[in-house]
Amino acid sequence: MTGQPLPGFRDFFPKEHSALRSIFQAWREASRRSGFSEYEGPELESLDLYKEKSGDEIVGQLYHFKDKGDREVALRPEMTPTFARMVASQHRNYRKPIKWFSVPRLFRYERPQRGRHREHYQWNCDVVGEKSAAAEAELISTLCLGLSLLGLGPKDVVVKISDRSWWDSFLAKHGVGEKEKPDVLRILDRMEGSTPEQRKEKLGVLAGPVEDAWEGRGGDSPALMEVRKGVEALGYGEWCETDLRVVRGLAYYTGVVFEVHDRSGKLRAVAGGGRYDDLLKKLGGEDLPATGFGMGDAVLAELLREKNIQSVEPSAAEIFVVAEAGEKAMGLALVGQLRRGGFCADYDPGAGKLGKQLELAEAKGARWALLVGRESAEGKFGLKELATRRQVEVRWSKGPDGNICLEPNPGEWAKVVGS
Amino acid sequence: MTGQPLPGFRDFFPKEHSALRSIFQAWREASRRSGFSEYEGPELESLDLYKEKSGDEIVGQLYHFKDKGDREVALRPEMTPTFARMVASQHRNYRKPIKWFSVPRLFRYERPQRGRHREHYQWNCDVVGEKSAAAEAELISTLCLGLSLLGLGPKDVVVKISDRSWWDSFLAKHGVGEKEKPDVLRILDRMEGSTPEQRKEKLGVLAGPVEDAWEGRGGDSPALMEVRKGVEALGYGEWCETDLRVVRGLAYYTGVVFEVHDRSGKLRAVAGGGRYDDLLKKLGGEDLPATGFGMGDAVLAELLREKNIQSVEPSAAEIFVVAEAGEKAMGLALVGQLRRGGFCADYDPGAGKLGKQLELAEAKGARWALLVGRESAEGKFGLKELATRRQVEVRWSKGPDGNICLEPNPGEWAKVVGS
Repeated sequence: MTGQPLPGFRDFFPKEHSALRSIFQAWREASRRSGFSEYEGPELESLDLYKEKSGDEIVGQLYHFKDKGDREVALRPEMTPTFARMVASQHRNYRKPIKWFSVPRLFRYERPQRGRHREHYQWNCDVVGEKSAAAEAELISTLCLGLSLLGLGPKDVVVKISDRSWWDSFLAKHGVGEKEKPDVLRILDRMEGSTPEQRKEKLGVLAGPVEDAWEGRGGDSPALMEVRKGVEALGYGEWCETDLRVVRGLAYYTGVVFEVHDRSGKLRAVAGGGRYDDLLKKLGGEDLPATGFGMGDAVLAELLREKNIQSVEPSAAEIFVVAEAGEKAMGLALVGQLRRGGFCADYDPGAGKLGKQLELAEAKGARWALLVGRESAEGKFGLKELATRRQVEVRWSKGPDGNICLEPNPGEWAKVVGS
Repeated sequence: MTGQPLPGFRDFFPKEHSALRSIFQAWREASRRSGFSEYEGPELESLDLYKEKSGDEIVGQLYHFKDKGDREVALRPEMTPTFARMVASQHRNYRKPIKWFSVPRLFRYERPQRGRHREHYQWNCDVVGEKSAAAEAELISTLCLGLSLLGLGPKDVVVKISDRSWWDSFLAKHGVGEKEKPDVLRILDRMEGSTPEQRKEKLGVLAGPVEDAWEGRGGDSPALMEVRKGVEALGYGEWCETDLRVVRGLAYYTGVVFEVHDRSGKLRAVAGGGRYDDLLKKLGGEDLPATGFGMGDAVLAELLREKNIQSVEPSAAEIFVVAEAGEKAMGLALVGQLRRGGFCADYDPGAGKLGKQLELAEAKGARWALLVGRESAEGKFGLKELATRRQVEVRWSKGPDGNICLEPNPGEWAKVVGS
């Protein structure tokens, strides 16, 4: 058996999982504070669901196969089609605007590279049933809140805001037909960092007007300004910039679009989203305005590493009960009771000599060692703070319910030992 | 587009997801208190990983396919092979006993039925590197703690404890060879509720001795008694029963095994596990004793429903800011600031008339409406507790950092309105 996961997949050992959890926690906390409710869907869906949204092209990037019931199925590459399916089936039961979020695991068959795996977690927030710029402002302020809960600020990241409908008018004005439009948008999406010659080559006569637009000489978009006003009012004005170079490659965006980038511009986009007012109708038959964003865990984790922001790995054990040979039953009773009382308690199942038990307590990163020795018959335990080696006495007695009462109780230990 | 997920898969709308979350929370909290650390692995693994553990037979129940790189891959049907792979690759970096847990999503192509889906979540706890019965006692007490955090007790569920090695000796004594053994174990595993005639038919001459064993006349197992003693010492004695009818169908168990059942016996097992001392060597080349259990979300959720234990769905919004037309910017500033301060705050993006905003506040289940009207110029907001219709005044001023200071602050509102 190979010890490695498949290429592009990740093992999360306790330390790595702790970093992942702190990301999840920030995502969930920002969503909750901003009034979004969590949902989840299947990881396996009908292949058609993705073809309907993105065309046959997407199939090349999917994990798809025929199941034992002869259905063409795919591991979800993104959450929006599932979201659209769920909203279409139940939106009548929910008051608009619907504000839902999810933290799905997603799969794409891509060449693994830095910050890009074949599976990743993605924070998805969507607002359905709201036409005004308030929807985008909610989303952008929620993602800024999430990033700030992780320790990132407007000096680390920038939300670049653009307007797809502005580009639609621009392309129509310059004679680009509906048929060529998706290709031109895809080219524009990849133009950042290109030279004027490359743009000339790819865009032809459009190159000049595009450059004018980039320089801000293309006029401004009222929708975009409305969004920026809303984000500013919610307190995240300094996180944002107008940047018409952002177009988002996907065909289904209809209005304001945005991307989050690290200020240094070294990494791929941390998040991206925008308005997709026609998609729910196309996918679910329900004509509802919608906006949303997705933020993956991988680029974000890289950015946090780069900024030297590390999650604190919680110690596995708070209280380690160390019992002499004759006091094992008392030790176990304490462990069980401390756990039921909400504390994180552990012990050495090997139950070797005291010194060995203490050594394990330290190796496991416990803060306290509760020493159960012969004095327990006199109603006493020893209590040792392992880092400081300070030791005090704890008294115990049996309560009316048969429980062991500790005096002082663990909530007060820090105070007692510190004094 | 069909509004339904694939057969056997589930959509978790906000209400269902809230119930799922309360299960996850109990699992994680019980694990943490008991000193287990969380890990996670890939959902897609090499097909060989499962064949090595369970033989070719397992393939019939798997979602497996050839990926675009021509690898035979499978959606994980269980966590143990991934766990074994991860432990084998890094166990030297961890002090024994290794106590890890995970809440993986698992996939099996089975006929969907009550409490059985094609995907489910499973709580997995494992202890590696501990030969003594302390390992099983840890696992059983941890799962009892998890169930009790959900509101279940020893009147609702029973942990049936048995000993696979006892059965091994029993079968050897009655002339069952190593080759026939797996089949006989599988038959024994399905014998509960059978008639004496059925047992006679399936087991032949073994039927009589098996019945004697079931009746407890088969003697007892020292390993099993040791485990029961440990669980008792940790405070969960009344949750447990010895029941030799439990054998667990899987071939790899080597010692004490256990299952959790509802007391009424109506549902399938809620959890199951046991000692598998040879598996890590077989899978990962490391000779380490190990024990573990798995508990799925589906049967557990059914049991909770049957016992009428429902998770409280948290209200999406705590504070709903209601602003008059001229005070929209102030309203948004409040929303942003309350969220940054840790509160769950929302507002009506449509920003209609006051009455409509209040109606949305109630529809969203908010507790408080913070009313921003013309009196805000005089340093006052209205505060309404929506359920009781009680209304008081809140004063505000600008702090030195430009923040809005509320007097009283939201933490004190309940007290102020209640008095």
